[in-house]
Amino acid sequence: MQIAIVLYPEFTALDVIGPYEVLSRIPGAEVVFAAHEPGDVADATGSLLVSAMALDDVSRPDVVLVGGGPGQAGLMADGPVHRWLRAVDPTSTWMSAVSTGSLILASAGLLGDREVATHWLATGQLAVLGAKSTSDRVVIDGKYATAAGVSAGIDLALTLAGLIAGDEVAQAIQLIVEYSPEPPYASGTPESASPRVVERVLARRDELLGTT
Amino acid sequence: MQIAIVLYPEFTALDVIGPYEVLSRIPGAEVVFAAHEPGDVADATGSLLVSAMALDDVSRPDVVLVGGGPGQAGLMADGPVHRWLRAVDPTSTWMSAVSTGSLILASAGLLGDREVATHWLATGQLAVLGAKSTSDRVVIDGKYATAAGVSAGIDLALTLAGLIAGDEVAQAIQLIVEYSPEPPYASGTPESASPRVVERVLARRDELLGTT
Repeated sequence: MQIAIVLYPEFTALDVIGPYEVLSRIPGAEVVFAAHEPGDVADATGSLLVSAMALDDVSRPDVVLVGGGPGQAGLMADGPVHRWLRAVDPTSTWMSAVSTGSLILASAGLLGDREVATHWLATGQLAVLGAKSTSDRVVIDGKYATAAGVSAGIDLALTLAGLIAGDEVAQAIQLIVEYSPEPPYASGTPESASPRVVERVLARRDELLGTT
Repeated sequence: MQIAIVLYPEFTALDVIGPYEVLSRIPGAEVVFAAHEPGDVADATGSLLVSAMALDDVSRPDVVLVGGGPGQAGLMADGPVHRWLRAVDPTSTWMSAVSTGSLILASAGLLGDREVATHWLATGQLAVLGAKSTSDRVVIDGKYATAAGVSAGIDLALTLAGLIAGDEVAQAIQLIVEYSPEPPYASGTPESASPRVVERVLARRDELLGTT
Protein backbone atom coordinates (compact mmCIF):
# COMPACT_ATOMS: atom_id res chain seq x y z
CA MET A 1 0.00 0.00 0.00
CA GLN A 2 1.59 3.24 -1.14
CA ILE A 3 0.73 6.45 0.71
CA ALA A 4 1.64 9.68 -1.07
CA ILE A 5 1.96 12.84 1.02
CA VAL A 6 1.80 15.94 -1.16
CA LEU A 7 4.18 18.77 -0.26
CA TYR A 8 4.39 22.30 -1.62
CA PRO A 9 6.27 25.42 -0.50
CA GLU A 10 4.93 26.89 2.76
CA PHE A 11 3.12 23.76 3.91
CA THR A 12 2.30 23.44 7.61
CA ALA A 13 4.58 20.78 9.06
CA LEU A 14 2.27 19.15 11.60
CA ASP A 15 -0.56 18.86 9.03
CA VAL A 16 1.45 16.18 7.26
CA ILE A 17 3.76 14.78 9.96
CA GLY A 18 0.92 13.95 12.37
CA PRO A 19 -0.73 11.69 9.78
CA TYR A 20 2.66 10.44 8.56
CA GLU A 21 3.59 9.18 12.03
CA VAL A 22 0.34 7.21 12.23
CA LEU A 23 -0.13 6.02 8.62
CA SER A 24 3.49 4.93 8.16
CA ARG A 25 2.95 2.44 11.03
CA ILE A 26 0.19 0.54 9.19
CA PRO A 27 1.67 -2.87 8.31
CA GLY A 28 2.68 -2.93 4.65
CA ALA A 29 2.52 0.82 4.21
CA GLU A 30 5.15 2.61 2.17
CA VAL A 31 5.07 6.40 2.45
CA VAL A 32 6.49 8.83 -0.08
CA PHE A 33 6.72 12.60 0.17
CA ALA A 34 6.14 14.15 -3.24
CA ALA A 35 5.98 17.64 -4.71
CA HIS A 36 5.56 19.18 -8.15
CA GLU A 37 9.17 20.34 -7.96
CA PRO A 38 11.25 17.56 -6.40
CA GLY A 39 13.99 18.37 -3.91
CA ASP A 40 13.88 20.10 -0.56
CA VAL A 41 10.53 21.70 0.19
CA ALA A 42 10.41 24.39 2.88
CA ASP A 43 7.53 24.59 5.31
CA ALA A 44 5.67 27.79 6.25
CA THR A 45 8.18 28.72 8.95
CA GLY A 46 11.08 28.14 6.59
CA SER A 47 13.11 26.20 9.16
CA LEU A 48 12.01 22.73 8.08
CA LEU A 49 13.24 21.37 4.76
CA VAL A 50 11.78 18.01 3.73
CA SER A 51 13.11 16.03 0.80
CA ALA A 52 10.44 15.21 -1.80
CA MET A 53 10.32 13.15 -4.97
CA ALA A 54 8.44 14.34 -8.07
CA LEU A 55 4.67 13.95 -8.11
CA ASP A 56 5.06 12.76 -11.71
CA ASP A 57 7.01 9.75 -10.41
CA VAL A 58 4.10 8.69 -8.19
CA SER A 59 1.54 7.29 -10.59
CA ARG A 60 -0.76 5.02 -8.60
CA PRO A 61 -0.82 5.76 -4.87
CA ASP A 62 -3.39 3.93 -2.76
CA VAL A 63 -3.75 6.76 -0.27
CA VAL A 64 -3.18 10.45 -0.96
CA LEU A 65 -2.81 13.02 1.82
CA VAL A 66 -2.68 16.78 1.27
CA GLY A 67 -1.88 19.06 4.19
CA GLY A 68 -2.65 22.73 4.54
CA GLY A 69 -0.59 25.83 5.16
CA PRO A 70 -0.20 29.37 3.82
CA GLY A 71 1.17 27.89 0.59
CA GLN A 72 -2.31 26.57 -0.25
CA ALA A 73 -3.20 30.04 -1.51
CA GLY A 74 -0.77 29.52 -4.38
CA LEU A 75 -2.61 26.35 -5.34
CA MET A 76 -6.10 27.71 -5.88
CA ALA A 77 -5.70 28.32 -9.63
CA ASP A 78 -5.68 25.07 -11.60
CA GLY A 79 -2.19 23.71 -12.15
CA PRO A 80 0.05 20.64 -12.10
CA VAL A 81 -0.78 19.63 -8.53
CA HIS A 82 -4.50 19.65 -9.38
CA ARG A 83 -3.88 17.68 -12.59
CA TRP A 84 -1.91 15.10 -10.61
CA LEU A 85 -4.66 14.83 -7.98
CA ARG A 86 -7.28 14.29 -10.70
CA ALA A 87 -5.04 11.73 -12.42
CA VAL A 88 -4.56 9.55 -9.33
CA ASP A 89 -8.06 9.98 -7.92
CA PRO A 90 -9.76 7.21 -9.96
CA THR A 91 -7.36 4.47 -8.82
CA SER A 92 -6.79 5.59 -5.22
CA THR A 93 -8.55 4.03 -2.26
CA TRP A 94 -8.49 7.13 -0.07
CA MET A 95 -8.09 10.81 -0.87
CA SER A 96 -7.48 12.75 2.31
CA ALA A 97 -6.72 16.28 3.39
CA VAL A 98 -5.89 18.08 6.61
CA SER A 99 -6.75 21.68 7.47
CA THR A 100 -6.64 23.96 4.42
CA GLY A 101 -5.43 20.99 2.38
CA SER A 102 -9.12 20.37 1.75
CA LEU A 103 -9.24 23.68 -0.17
CA ILE A 104 -6.69 22.18 -2.56
CA LEU A 105 -8.77 19.02 -3.10
CA ALA A 106 -11.84 21.21 -3.55
CA SER A 107 -10.16 23.53 -6.06
CA ALA A 108 -9.00 20.47 -8.00
CA GLY A 109 -12.68 19.68 -8.41
CA LEU A 110 -12.55 16.45 -6.43
CA LEU A 111 -14.94 17.24 -3.61
CA GLY A 112 -18.04 18.48 -5.43
CA ASP A 113 -20.67 19.26 -2.81
CA ARG A 114 -19.45 16.68 -0.32
CA GLU A 115 -19.26 17.25 3.44
CA VAL A 116 -15.75 18.40 4.23
CA ALA A 117 -13.74 19.43 7.29
CA THR A 118 -11.16 22.19 7.14
CA HIS A 119 -9.39 24.72 9.37
CA TRP A 120 -11.94 26.84 11.22
CA LEU A 121 -10.49 29.98 9.59
CA ALA A 122 -11.21 28.54 6.12
CA THR A 123 -14.81 27.32 6.25
CA GLY A 124 -16.04 30.31 4.25
CA GLN A 125 -13.45 29.77 1.54
CA LEU A 126 -14.41 26.09 1.34
CA ALA A 127 -18.07 27.00 0.88
CA VAL A 128 -17.10 29.30 -2.01
CA LEU A 129 -15.50 26.25 -3.66
CA GLY A 130 -18.81 24.40 -3.45
CA ALA A 131 -18.18 21.90 -0.66
CA LYS A 132 -20.32 21.66 2.47
CA SER A 133 -18.13 22.69 5.35
CA THR A 134 -18.84 21.15 8.73
CA SER A 135 -17.52 21.81 12.20
CA ASP A 136 -16.70 18.10 12.65
CA ARG A 137 -13.08 17.35 13.40
CA VAL A 138 -12.92 14.38 11.02
CA VAL A 139 -15.29 13.75 8.11
CA ILE A 140 -15.42 10.57 6.04
CA ASP A 141 -17.60 11.03 2.95
CA GLY A 142 -17.13 8.10 0.60
CA LYS A 143 -13.41 7.78 -0.03
CA TYR A 144 -12.79 11.46 0.76
CA ALA A 145 -11.49 11.88 4.29
CA THR A 146 -10.87 15.35 5.67
CA ALA A 147 -9.81 16.85 8.97
CA ALA A 148 -10.09 20.19 10.74
CA GLY A 149 -6.99 22.32 11.40
CA VAL A 150 -3.41 21.08 11.74
CA SER A 151 -3.45 18.71 14.75
CA ALA A 152 -6.76 17.15 13.60
CA GLY A 153 -4.72 15.20 11.07
CA ILE A 154 -3.71 12.83 13.88
CA ASP A 155 -7.35 12.01 14.60
CA LEU A 156 -8.00 11.62 10.86
CA ALA A 157 -5.05 9.28 10.43
CA LEU A 158 -6.05 7.05 13.34
CA THR A 159 -9.57 6.87 11.88
CA LEU A 160 -8.14 5.91 8.48
CA ALA A 161 -5.76 3.39 10.07
CA GLY A 162 -8.79 1.69 11.64
CA LEU A 163 -10.69 1.65 8.35
CA ILE A 164 -7.66 0.33 6.44
CA ALA A 165 -6.17 -2.15 8.90
CA GLY A 166 -8.79 -2.70 11.62
CA ASP A 167 -9.39 -1.27 15.06
CA GLU A 168 -6.74 -3.30 16.85
CA VAL A 169 -3.95 -2.13 14.55
CA ALA A 170 -5.10 1.47 14.91
CA GLN A 171 -5.29 1.12 18.68
CA ALA A 172 -1.75 -0.30 18.80
CA ILE A 173 -0.52 2.68 16.78
CA GLN A 174 -2.30 5.02 19.18
CA LEU A 175 -0.57 3.31 22.10
CA ILE A 176 2.83 3.48 20.39
CA VAL A 177 2.49 7.23 19.81
CA GLU A 178 0.97 7.54 23.30
CA TYR A 179 -1.90 9.62 21.97
CA SER A 180 -3.77 10.36 25.16
CA PRO A 181 -3.82 14.14 24.86
CA GLU A 182 -3.76 16.48 27.82
CA PRO A 183 -3.79 19.99 26.39
CA PRO A 184 -2.74 22.47 29.10
CA TYR A 185 -5.46 24.89 27.94
CA ALA A 186 -8.97 24.52 26.51
CA SER A 187 -8.40 26.89 23.59
CA GLY A 188 -8.41 24.46 20.68
CA THR A 189 -11.59 25.71 19.03
CA PRO A 190 -13.07 29.18 18.49
CA GLU A 191 -15.99 28.11 20.72
CA SER A 192 -13.77 27.14 23.67
CA ALA A 193 -11.09 29.84 23.39
CA SER A 194 -11.55 33.21 25.05
CA PRO A 195 -12.86 36.05 22.82
CA ARG A 196 -9.49 37.82 23.20
CA VAL A 197 -7.64 34.77 21.93
CA VAL A 198 -10.07 34.33 19.02
CA GLU A 199 -9.65 38.01 18.10
CA ARG A 200 -5.90 37.64 18.21
CA VAL A 201 -5.97 34.77 15.72
CA LEU A 202 -8.65 36.32 13.49
CA ALA A 203 -6.42 39.39 13.15
CA ARG A 204 -3.85 37.14 11.49
CA ARG A 205 -6.30 35.29 9.23
CA ASP A 206 -4.81 36.39 5.88
CA GLU A 207 -1.26 35.66 7.01
CA LEU A 208 -2.21 32.20 8.29
CA LEU A 209 -4.16 31.30 5.15
CA GLY A 210 -1.50 32.79 2.89
CA THR A 211 -4.04 35.15 1.36
CA THR A 212 -2.14 38.36 2.14
CA MET B 1 15.19 33.31 21.11
CA GLN B 2 16.88 30.41 19.37
CA ILE B 3 15.32 26.96 19.65
CA ALA B 4 17.55 24.05 18.66
CA ILE B 5 15.90 20.76 17.74
CA VAL B 6 18.40 17.90 17.86
CA LEU B 7 18.12 15.30 15.10
CA TYR B 8 19.90 11.96 14.71
CA PRO B 9 19.37 8.99 12.40
CA GLU B 10 16.16 7.05 13.15
CA PHE B 11 14.46 9.81 15.11
CA THR B 12 10.68 9.65 15.46
CA ALA B 13 9.20 12.39 13.30
CA LEU B 14 6.23 13.48 15.42
CA ASP B 15 8.39 13.70 18.57
CA VAL B 16 10.07 16.76 17.09
CA ILE B 17 7.53 18.14 14.60
CA GLY B 18 4.71 18.37 17.18
CA PRO B 19 6.81 20.68 19.37
CA TYR B 20 8.26 22.43 16.31
CA GLU B 21 4.81 23.44 15.09
CA VAL B 22 4.01 24.98 18.47
CA LEU B 23 7.37 26.46 19.52
CA SER B 24 8.12 28.03 16.12
CA ARG B 25 4.95 30.12 16.54
CA ILE B 26 6.22 31.86 19.68
CA PRO B 27 6.85 35.50 18.70
CA GLY B 28 10.58 36.05 18.17
CA ALA B 29 11.42 32.35 18.01
CA GLU B 30 13.96 31.11 15.50
CA VAL B 31 14.11 27.33 15.16
CA VAL B 32 17.05 25.36 13.83
CA PHE B 33 17.27 21.63 13.18
CA ALA B 34 20.75 20.39 14.02
CA ALA B 35 22.58 17.06 14.02
CA HIS B 36 26.10 15.86 14.72
CA GLU B 37 26.47 15.10 11.01
CA PRO B 38 24.84 17.94 9.06
CA GLY B 39 22.82 17.20 5.93
CA ASP B 40 19.69 15.13 5.44
CA VAL B 41 18.75 13.09 8.49
CA ALA B 42 16.39 10.13 7.97
CA ASP B 43 13.67 9.35 10.48
CA ALA B 44 12.91 5.88 11.86
CA THR B 45 10.65 4.98 8.95
CA GLY B 46 13.25 6.14 6.46
CA SER B 47 10.73 8.01 4.32
CA LEU B 48 11.26 11.42 5.89
CA LEU B 49 14.51 13.25 5.25
CA VAL B 50 14.98 16.51 7.17
CA SER B 51 17.79 18.92 6.43
CA ALA B 52 19.95 19.68 9.50
CA MET B 53 22.82 22.04 10.24
CA ALA B 54 25.79 20.96 12.36
CA LEU B 55 25.35 20.90 16.13
CA ASP B 56 28.81 22.50 16.33
CA ASP B 57 27.41 25.55 14.55
CA VAL B 58 24.77 26.05 17.25
CA SER B 59 26.67 27.38 20.21
CA ARG B 60 24.18 29.15 22.45
CA PRO B 61 20.57 28.04 21.96
CA ASP B 62 17.98 29.33 24.42
CA VAL B 63 15.81 26.24 24.16
CA VAL B 64 16.97 22.72 23.31
CA LEU B 65 14.57 19.94 22.32
CA VAL B 66 15.57 16.30 21.88
CA GLY B 67 13.06 13.84 20.48
CA GLY B 68 13.04 10.08 20.82
CA GLY B 69 13.02 7.21 18.38
CA PRO B 70 14.79 3.89 17.81
CA GLY B 71 17.98 5.83 17.03
CA GLN B 72 18.25 6.82 20.69
CA ALA B 73 19.79 3.42 21.39
CA GLY B 74 22.85 4.52 19.40
CA LEU B 75 23.20 7.54 21.68
CA MET B 76 23.50 5.83 25.05
CA ALA B 77 27.31 5.68 25.08
CA ASP B 78 28.86 9.07 25.65
CA GLY B 79 29.67 10.88 22.41
CA PRO B 80 29.54 14.17 20.51
CA VAL B 81 25.79 14.72 20.97
CA HIS B 82 26.20 14.35 24.75
CA ARG B 83 29.19 16.69 24.75
CA TRP B 84 27.18 19.27 22.81
CA LEU B 85 24.24 18.94 25.21
CA ARG B 86 26.55 19.45 28.21
CA ALA B 87 28.22 22.41 26.48
CA VAL B 88 24.98 24.30 25.83
CA ASP B 89 23.23 23.33 29.06
CA PRO B 90 24.73 26.08 31.28
CA THR B 91 23.55 28.94 29.04
CA SER B 92 20.19 27.55 27.91
CA THR B 93 16.88 28.58 29.44
CA TRP B 94 15.10 25.31 28.77
CA MET B 95 16.36 21.78 28.10
CA SER B 96 13.51 19.62 26.89
CA ALA B 97 12.96 16.11 25.65
CA VAL B 98 10.08 14.10 24.23
CA SER B 99 9.55 10.35 24.60
CA THR B 100 12.84 8.42 24.63
CA GLY B 101 14.64 11.69 24.01
CA SER B 102 14.75 11.95 27.79
CA LEU B 103 17.02 8.88 27.82
CA ILE B 104 19.50 10.90 25.77
CA LEU B 105 19.41 13.83 28.21
CA ALA B 106 19.77 11.35 31.09
CA SER B 107 22.70 9.52 29.51
CA ALA B 108 24.40 12.88 28.92
CA GLY B 109 24.29 13.29 32.68
CA LEU B 110 21.98 16.28 32.63
CA LEU B 111 19.01 14.92 34.55
CA GLY B 112 20.58 13.54 37.71
CA ASP B 113 17.80 12.18 39.89
CA ARG B 114 15.16 14.62 38.63
CA GLU B 115 11.55 13.69 37.91
CA VAL B 116 11.32 12.88 34.22
CA ALA B 117 8.65 11.79 31.74
CA THR B 118 9.42 9.37 28.92
CA HIS B 119 7.73 6.84 26.63
CA TRP B 120 5.85 4.25 28.71
CA LEU B 121 7.99 1.51 27.16
CA ALA B 122 11.16 3.19 28.46
CA THR B 123 10.46 3.97 32.11
CA GLY B 124 12.64 1.07 33.27
CA GLN B 125 15.55 2.20 31.12
CA LEU B 126 15.20 5.73 32.47
CA ALA B 127 15.35 4.47 36.06
CA VAL B 128 18.58 2.60 35.24
CA LEU B 129 20.03 5.96 34.18
CA GLY B 130 19.21 7.37 37.62
CA ALA B 131 16.26 9.64 36.88
CA LYS B 132 12.89 9.31 38.62
CA SER B 133 10.42 8.26 35.98
CA THR B 134 6.83 9.35 36.39
CA SER B 135 3.62 8.49 34.57
CA ASP B 136 2.86 12.20 34.10
CA ARG B 137 2.46 13.28 30.50
CA VAL B 138 4.47 16.48 30.98
CA VAL B 139 7.01 17.12 33.74
CA ILE B 140 8.66 20.47 34.46
CA ASP B 141 11.51 20.08 36.96
CA GLY B 142 13.53 23.27 37.10
CA LYS B 143 14.55 24.09 33.55
CA TYR B 144 14.28 20.45 32.46
CA ALA B 145 11.00 19.82 30.67
CA THR B 146 10.11 16.32 29.53
CA ALA B 147 7.15 14.61 27.90
CA ALA B 148 5.77 11.09 27.61
CA GLY B 149 5.72 9.29 24.25
CA VAL B 150 5.66 10.90 20.81
CA SER B 151 2.41 12.93 20.71
CA ALA B 152 2.97 14.20 24.27
CA GLY B 153 5.48 16.62 22.79
CA ILE B 154 2.56 18.78 21.68
CA ASP B 155 1.33 19.11 25.26
CA LEU B 156 4.89 19.80 26.42
CA ALA B 157 5.38 22.51 23.80
CA LEU B 158 2.13 24.28 24.65
CA THR B 159 3.16 24.20 28.31
CA LEU B 160 6.56 25.66 27.44
CA ALA B 161 4.97 28.28 25.16
CA GLY B 162 2.88 29.42 28.10
CA LEU B 163 5.90 29.59 30.41
CA ILE B 164 7.98 31.44 27.80
CA ALA B 165 5.44 33.83 26.28
CA GLY B 166 2.41 33.77 28.55
CA ASP B 167 -0.91 31.95 28.57
CA GLU B 168 -2.61 34.07 25.94
CA VAL B 169 0.13 33.47 23.36
CA ALA B 170 0.06 29.74 24.07
CA GLN B 171 -3.73 29.68 23.80
CA ALA B 172 -3.61 31.48 20.45
CA ILE B 173 -1.12 28.89 19.19
CA GLN B 174 -3.42 26.12 20.42
CA LEU B 175 -6.29 27.72 18.49
CA ILE B 176 -4.19 28.11 15.34
CA VAL B 177 -3.22 24.44 15.37
CA GLU B 178 -6.82 23.59 16.39
CA TYR B 179 -5.60 21.34 19.18
CA SER B 180 -8.88 20.07 20.54
CA PRO B 181 -8.13 16.36 20.23
CA GLU B 182 -10.80 13.74 19.56
CA PRO B 183 -8.94 10.41 19.40
CA PRO B 184 -11.22 7.81 17.77
CA TYR B 185 -10.11 5.22 20.36
CA ALA B 186 -9.16 5.33 24.04
CA SER B 187 -5.93 3.37 23.60
CA GLY B 188 -3.36 6.04 24.23
CA THR B 189 -1.95 4.63 27.47
CA PRO B 190 -1.18 1.08 28.63
CA GLU B 191 -3.84 1.56 31.32
CA SER B 192 -6.61 2.48 28.87
CA ALA B 193 -5.72 0.15 25.99
CA SER B 194 -7.01 -3.41 25.88
CA PRO B 195 -4.65 -6.13 27.17
CA ARG B 196 -4.40 -7.54 23.63
CA VAL B 197 -3.28 -4.18 22.27
CA VAL B 198 -0.75 -3.71 25.08
CA GLU B 199 0.62 -7.22 24.42
CA ARG B 200 0.91 -6.42 20.74
CA VAL B 201 3.02 -3.33 21.43
CA LEU B 202 5.09 -4.95 24.20
CA ALA B 203 6.05 -7.70 21.74
CA ARG B 204 7.73 -5.00 19.62
CA ARG B 205 9.45 -3.25 22.53
CA ASP B 206 13.05 -3.81 21.37
CA GLU B 207 12.27 -2.79 17.81
CA LEU B 208 10.49 0.39 18.93
CA LEU B 209 13.26 1.38 21.34
CA GLY B 210 15.97 0.44 18.86
CA THR B 211 17.47 -2.02 21.33
CA THR B 212 17.29 -5.06 19.01
